[in-house]
Amino acid sequence: MHNQFAFTAGRTGTWRISSIDAVRGAGLEPAAGLDITDLSATPLVREQGSAPAWVLLGTVSNVRYATRPELTEMRAKQEGLGRPNARRAALIPIKKSAAWWDLAQDERRAIFEETSHHTAIGMEYLPAVARKLFHSRDIGEPFDFLTWFEFAADDAAAFEHMVGRLRATREWTYVEREVDIRLER
Amino acid sequence: MHNQFAFTAGRTGTWRISSIDAVRGAGLEPAAGLDITDLSATPLVREQGSAPAWVLLGTVSNVRYATRPELTEMRAKQEGLGRPNARRAALIPIKKSAAWWDLAQDERRAIFEETSHHTAIGMEYLPAVARKLFHSRDIGEPFDFLTWFEFAADDAAAFEHMVGRLRATREWTYVEREVDIRLER
Repeated sequence: MHNQFAFTAGRTGTWRISSIDAVRGAGLEPAAGLDITDLSATPLVREQGSAPAWVLLGTVSNVRYATRPELTEMRAKQEGLGRPNARRAALIPIKKSAAWWDLAQDERRAIFEETSHHTAIGMEYLPAVARKLFHSRDIGEPFDFLTWFEFAADDAAAFEHMVGRLRATREWTYVEREVDIRLER
Repeated sequence: MHNQFAFTAGRTGTWRISSIDAVRGAGLEPAAGLDITDLSATPLVREQGSAPAWVLLGTVSNVRYATRPELTEMRAKQEGLGRPNARRAALIPIKKSAAWWDLAQDERRAIFEETSHHTAIGMEYLPAVARKLFHSRDIGEPFDFLTWFEFAADDAAAFEHMVGRLRATREWTYVEREVDIRLER
């Protein structure tokens, strides 16, 4: 499907899974490798005898909170995925509570940015930590978002610092399920 | 799927289709009747020998632009679907341009509300014109939104007036495909 991606975990994969931690709520089955498939280019074919441990789907969509100045700064600073030295990655699926989704747009934006500084925090770690967001809520998936991060081994400490700051925000009080998957290649 | 609805047009249906007009871009095949199916309750089963003219899918999602004061006013004024005297309906599938989706959230909100007064215009016609929005863009559908309206025959002129005002807004310059389907029961 157009703009839809599959994260398939199993015995093998382009990325080697180093850990899967349940940060809040239920975790995910253990697996050794992960592949990312662009479903607009390649249908998701499951080979016989290699049932995946899990498959998470997400869609690349329009921005939901970023303002024009934020987008302009982000696009000027960020670098793409697949940089040769970015051999570490994290996949962090998140589900927010019904209370979050019942908020009005201005209330979500206020918590997201004015209170929790989500965009601003992420911006501080550009271009070291590259990031791509996939939306899953409207396609009936168990998580609302999948965020994929790529960074060099030298930037692993900076990445931990960023994740710690985000988890300490008011926005994160609305997170009811979070799994933290770390990968290498 | 959770929160997903199907609008199935064919030879028969709960609603009788009185017209299908292509307002902008390609139209839809003619059909006589329309059924709305909540796919979380009932799987979409196609009876043999009654292939539908078309099926449009949409998801009930969170609000994207409405602020808390707008939501509060809307919820106080609006009435639900299925009122006994609301025997007229309209289904208006819309697709917006890539230029719209490339805008930042504050730019879309500014055009949607501050410039085009989309929420404010709709509010003026409450509770006469009941309205429900379905999102289709992130599930790979040909339209971005499906909006369903229900009103009494006595309020048909008010509905026309509302649609005319919305189509004259700056927001509508971003609409690249629109079909207007009118129904009765």
